[in-house]
Amino acid sequence: MRQRRLLDSFSPYVPGEQPASRNVIKLNTNENPFGPVDSVVRALRDMDGEMLRRYPDPLCQGLVSRLSKTYGFPSEGVLVGNGSDEVLAMAVRAFVDPGDRVLLTDPTYSLYENILQLQGADIVKISLGPGFAWPQEMLDARGALLFLASPNSPNGDSFAPDKVAELASRFDGLIVVDEAYADFAETNCLDLARNRDNVIIVRTFSKSFSLASLRIGFALGRPGTLRSLRLVKDSYNVNLAGQVAGCAALDSLEEIQARIRIIREQRDRVMHRVRAMGFEVYPSQANFFLFQVSRAKEYDERLKAIGIYVRHFDRPGLSRYLRVSVGTSEQNDAFLAALDRLRKELGHA
Amino acid sequence: MRQRRLLDSFSPYVPGEQPASRNVIKLNTNENPFGPVDSVVRALRDMDGEMLRRYPDPLCQGLVSRLSKTYGFPSEGVLVGNGSDEVLAMAVRAFVDPGDRVLLTDPTYSLYENILQLQGADIVKISLGPGFAWPQEMLDARGALLFLASPNSPNGDSFAPDKVAELASRFDGLIVVDEAYADFAETNCLDLARNRDNVIIVRTFSKSFSLASLRIGFALGRPGTLRSLRLVKDSYNVNLAGQVAGCAALDSLEEIQARIRIIREQRDRVMHRVRAMGFEVYPSQANFFLFQVSRAKEYDERLKAIGIYVRHFDRPGLSRYLRVSVGTSEQNDAFLAALDRLRKELGHA
Repeated sequence: MRQRRLLDSFSPYVPGEQPASRNVIKLNTNENPFGPVDSVVRALRDMDGEMLRRYPDPLCQGLVSRLSKTYGFPSEGVLVGNGSDEVLAMAVRAFVDPGDRVLLTDPTYSLYENILQLQGADIVKISLGPGFAWPQEMLDARGALLFLASPNSPNGDSFAPDKVAELASRFDGLIVVDEAYADFAETNCLDLARNRDNVIIVRTFSKSFSLASLRIGFALGRPGTLRSLRLVKDSYNVNLAGQVAGCAALDSLEEIQARIRIIREQRDRVMHRVRAMGFEVYPSQANFFLFQVSRAKEYDERLKAIGIYVRHFDRPGLSRYLRVSVGTSEQNDAFLAALDRLRKELGHA
Repeated sequence: MRQRRLLDSFSPYVPGEQPASRNVIKLNTNENPFGPVDSVVRALRDMDGEMLRRYPDPLCQGLVSRLSKTYGFPSEGVLVGNGSDEVLAMAVRAFVDPGDRVLLTDPTYSLYENILQLQGADIVKISLGPGFAWPQEMLDARGALLFLASPNSPNGDSFAPDKVAELASRFDGLIVVDEAYADFAETNCLDLARNRDNVIIVRTFSKSFSLASLRIGFALGRPGTLRSLRLVKDSYNVNLAGQVAGCAALDSLEEIQARIRIIREQRDRVMHRVRAMGFEVYPSQANFFLFQVSRAKEYDERLKAIGIYVRHFDRPGLSRYLRVSVGTSEQNDAFLAALDRLRKELGHA
């Protein structure tokens, strides 16, 4: 069968390795090292046959009303998706025609490029400055849509909200601020999305809420903008387990925030230690951080051989870095000890 | 924000009503009247914090290997989606370019049209013959893709596999045979999908497996064809609960098949009774059936008022019919008694 021609040159997104074994220290895909709060596990156990045999609520009303209350957006300004990946794709399907120009920072979350290629968009990349800094030429950007991850991956730093606000006042298309990691950060762009039609925020339950398994993401924005995303939504896009777990998690927000504080403390501790070993570590506001090491691929393989999974991106411009998720105190100690041994053996350079 | 122009004239799919109350007789969206088998509920209860915090297997390997064994396709010929709705959308995203001609029967599952509109396809409808019969002109059809629901909705009958085989030998594009209801039917097109590159089968766990809540659908076909669908797949499209429940269901296939037999017996009984009341009832191989009644909308409202939900399609060509899912014996009796009372009050015409 002849597939669409644009697929002939398309390479799909490669997700980080998901080892089947539970006995590894998994610091490669930025999951939360703590399991979800007990009330989430209990709510999932209460799903009975009568709930399971029926279709889920296509509008996710319970989850939308809690998100509305938690984040201070009207319910028409909230949309839930099958993970934030689906929400990102919906933004593209609603606002990008084939051939439209769309902007990305370089580097950033590589999935954006895959979604845009499938839509036949004309992708323009704006390189971040030294140390992954905000590039001033961003302000002159023109296009149908711009993806901005803040905190950005793989470096981990947030973009300053006043810079994003300045950009929003000048940019002609939709700015999708991907705040997957914003719960670990000092700043966010929620205010901007409340006030500007051309900014939406995309968030996820995968990181701060410890629910990567259940694929729950959401968009926040002004009702008129969100209406367009809702048009392209699959009717039953979020399954019952996702809705049940999301509701229970939002009902236990304080407990979750306490865990987030621990992860931030651990992040600062680990980064400090890695820096003290002599590595260049980049600023991070996320639950991961990036550091530079010439023989990154070798480090990655050696760490994996002893059951410690970190992330090495075998891509131009990123091959000399390692990205490490923040784990539990014990996991972080194991990583630090292994890194220190490797450093002595392989050197930094 | 200026959305894509093609959305300005787009009306999204309207799913059947999903009442929050458990105390209704819900015969409007073809769910299975029985809950999932116990082993499914148990497997879901075994999801623990360590599983929940992690990303699910992006390749659904456990589920794919069971589907491969159950249906006799190589694992490269199996793809799992977030409900069959997502699988249908993937087929369009992989094989239909904007402007491509695509064929639908009329009537059929109305979601196809929504997915195709979003892709900017040129939709051509081929009217079914009297009594929803196979239209001979289908054999002259030309296009990038053709959706064929078998059993078809809303009427419930299957298309004969030899007719579909003849079509497949002449059609130039991909034939997507949507077999959402085929577990209730005498025939299916699995053999055709095993042997022809231009035929894929799409199935779901929502009906025969009683798992509408968890959104699990799949495609079966030849590896080369499925490879194109895999290219457009979201990496983590099926969540952990869907994968866990799907695996457990396939491990309990005999128990599920026994329930399917009960539903088929109930279907034949209810259809016979409705026919005996003097209504025109159309042949069905599904877990629902369609009958003709002029004042269908009034019947629908009166039934809903007493807590019995059936499906009335307020669309040209379908407004004089009611579609009724097959329930438990008790639910079916309640529906039959209510229908008999309404018939005496409102008449058939």
